Amino acid sequence: MGTSMATNLLEFLSKLSPDDPFERQLHVHNRTQSKTDKLVSQGAVLAPSVADLASACTIVFSMLLNDAAVTSTVEAFLSADPKPGTVFVDCSTVYPNLSEDLSHKAAEKGVLYLTSPIFGRPDAVLAHRGLLVSAGDPAARERVRPLLEAIGQGILDCGDDPRAGSAMKLVGNFFISSWIELAAEGMTLGEKNGVARETVLDFITRLFPGFITTGYAKALVADKFTPTPEDPGFNLEGGMKDVGHMQRLGRESGAPLPVADIVQEHMQQVKNMGGAGLDWSSLSLAVRKEAGLPLSHLQ
Amino acid sequence: MGTSMATNLLEFLSKLSPDDPFERQLHVHNRTQSKTDKLVSQGAVLAPSVADLASACTIVFSMLLNDAAVTSTVEAFLSADPKPGTVFVDCSTVYPNLSEDLSHKAAEKGVLYLTSPIFGRPDAVLAHRGLLVSAGDPAARERVRPLLEAIGQGILDCGDDPRAGSAMKLVGNFFISSWIELAAEGMTLGEKNGVARETVLDFITRLFPGFITTGYAKALVADKFTPTPEDPGFNLEGGMKDVGHMQRLGRESGAPLPVADIVQEHMQQVKNMGGAGLDWSSLSLAVRKEAGLPLSHLQ
Repeated sequence: MGTSMATNLLEFLSKLSPDDPFERQLHVHNRTQSKTDKLVSQGAVLAPSVADLASACTIVFSMLLNDAAVTSTVEAFLSADPKPGTVFVDCSTVYPNLSEDLSHKAAEKGVLYLTSPIFGRPDAVLAHRGLLVSAGDPAARERVRPLLEAIGQGILDCGDDPRAGSAMKLVGNFFISSWIELAAEGMTLGEKNGVARETVLDFITRLFPGFITTGYAKALVADKFTPTPEDPGFNLEGGMKDVGHMQRLGRESGAPLPVADIVQEHMQQVKNMGGAGLDWSSLSLAVRKEAGLPLSHLQ
Repeated sequence: MGTSMATNLLEFLSKLSPDDPFERQLHVHNRTQSKTDKLVSQGAVLAPSVADLASACTIVFSMLLNDAAVTSTVEAFLSADPKPGTVFVDCSTVYPNLSEDLSHKAAEKGVLYLTSPIFGRPDAVLAHRGLLVSAGDPAARERVRPLLEAIGQGILDCGDDPRAGSAMKLVGNFFISSWIELAAEGMTLGEKNGVARETVLDFITRLFPGFITTGYAKALVADKFTPTPEDPGFNLEGGMKDVGHMQRLGRESGAPLPVADIVQEHMQQVKNMGGAGLDWSSLSLAVRKEAGLPLSHLQ
C-alpha cells in the first residue's frame, strides 16, 4: 500500500510548477530496504533511517502494519529533532487511542499529527481510486490536502481530532467485514433452499451495487480466497486485528457491536481450520461448514 | 403494493395490439372493496369474490399480507373450478413451504402455481422500478413474463420450483434488514467516537452506493421512522414476520443466520418500547438505546 501511495506522490511532485509550495523531492524509507528499490529507480531518494526523514522533510506519510510499528516509527521520528511545524500523516489502521497519544507526543515537539487511513486495496489506490480519511489540525489538513488528492480520488473529512480518523477507519472496516458475513449467510440460506449463489449475486448486483458489495459476493461465488501476486487481498490475520480493534472500541466506548462479534468468531474458526493466510472473505467458509455445505478450501 | 402492480398491468393491457395473446380485461378483487375503487374508475372490472376471478381469468396475481391470507385466498380460488391451465402467480412474502404446498394443491386442479415476490416499495413499483422474482413451471413463467416486465424493471429468475421464489424473497429481505442493523451499529460506533453520522453516511454513499444502502442510512441520520401517506415504508410488525420466516427457514434447512437473530432481537426491543407502527429501520433505536445515545422516538 505504501508503494502505491508513494508512486502517486512521485507522479504529483514531478508535475509541480515552480510556484507550488511543496518540497520537490520524495524521500522514502522502509524497514525492508529492497521494497524501496523501484521507487528509488523512479526518482525517490532513499532515507536509510526514520531519523533521516526528520531532517529531510516537513511533510511525512506513514503506512505501517500495526500499532507497535506505528509507535516505534513515530517515536523514532520525534526523537530525531523534526523541524517545528512538520506535518506527520499516519495512514495506518490503528486503535484510535494510539493516534490520540501520538498526536500529544508530536505536539510536544511542535509536530502536527494527522490521521489519514485509506480505503482501497493497493492496486485500486495505485489507480487513484482510494478513499482517504483526513482528521487533525485544520491548517495542517489544508496544507496536505493537495497531496491526499494526488494519492486518492476522494477525501472523507473527519474533523479536527486525529482520534476520529482512526475511528472512521474501523467503522469502515466494520461495514466491509460485516458485509462479507451478510453475503455468506444470505448465500448459504439460499443454497440450502434451492436458490443458487449466482442468483443471490444477481440480486446483490441489482439492489446492492458497488464494487465492495459485488466484489466480495463474486469472490464467494467463485470460492476465491487464495491471495495472488496480482490480487493480494487482505488476509485473515490482518482482518482479525482490525475486527479486534473494533470490538475493543465498541466495548470501551459503550457501542454495541454484535455483528462484529459474529465476524470475529467466524474468522477465528477459519483460522483454526488453517486459513490464516487466506483472504478475510474466507470467513464465509465457517458459515458454509456450519451449514454442512461442501468447502472449496481447508476441507 | 397490489394497487401499484394492478395500475401497471392496466397500462400494459391498454396498449396491447390485437395480436397479443393476453386477455384484454383486468379483473380486481380486494377484501376491502373500496381499495379497488380507483382501479375500477381506470377501467378494471370489480370481482366481488375470489371465485369470480376463477371464472373470469386464466392468469391471476395475488399480493396478500401473510400466509393465512394466501392460504384462504388460494383455497377459495381452487374451489371455484378454475379453467385447467390457469396460471396463479403469488407475489406475497410467505414461508416457502406454503408455496410448495399450494403449488401441489393447484396442480391437482390443473392450475400452474408460480411465485413472484417483489422487491421495492409501492411507490417504486408504481414507477416501474420493482424487481420481480420468478419461479415455477417454465412454460407458465414464459407465458407471464411480459406481464412481469410490465409491472417491474427486472426479473430475478429462480428456476422451476415455486418454493425457491419464496425463499429468494426471504434471502433478499435478510440482506435489507441486516443492512439496517449494520448501518445502526456502524453509525453508533462512529457517534460514540467523534465521527458524525453524516460522515458515516458520506462513507456509505461513496463505498456502498445503491438506493437501499443509502436510503436507510439517510433515514437513520434523519431519525425518520414514522410512516407518512407518501412514504408508508415497511412497518416493524411486518418486518418481524419476515425475519421470523427467515429464522425458521434457517433452522429448518440448517443454515446459520446469527445476524437475523440480532435483527429480530432489536426489532422486539423497539416493539416493546411501543414502536410497532414505526418503519422497520427503527430497529436502530435499540442499538442507540443500548449505547446510551439520545432517542428521537419512544423515549
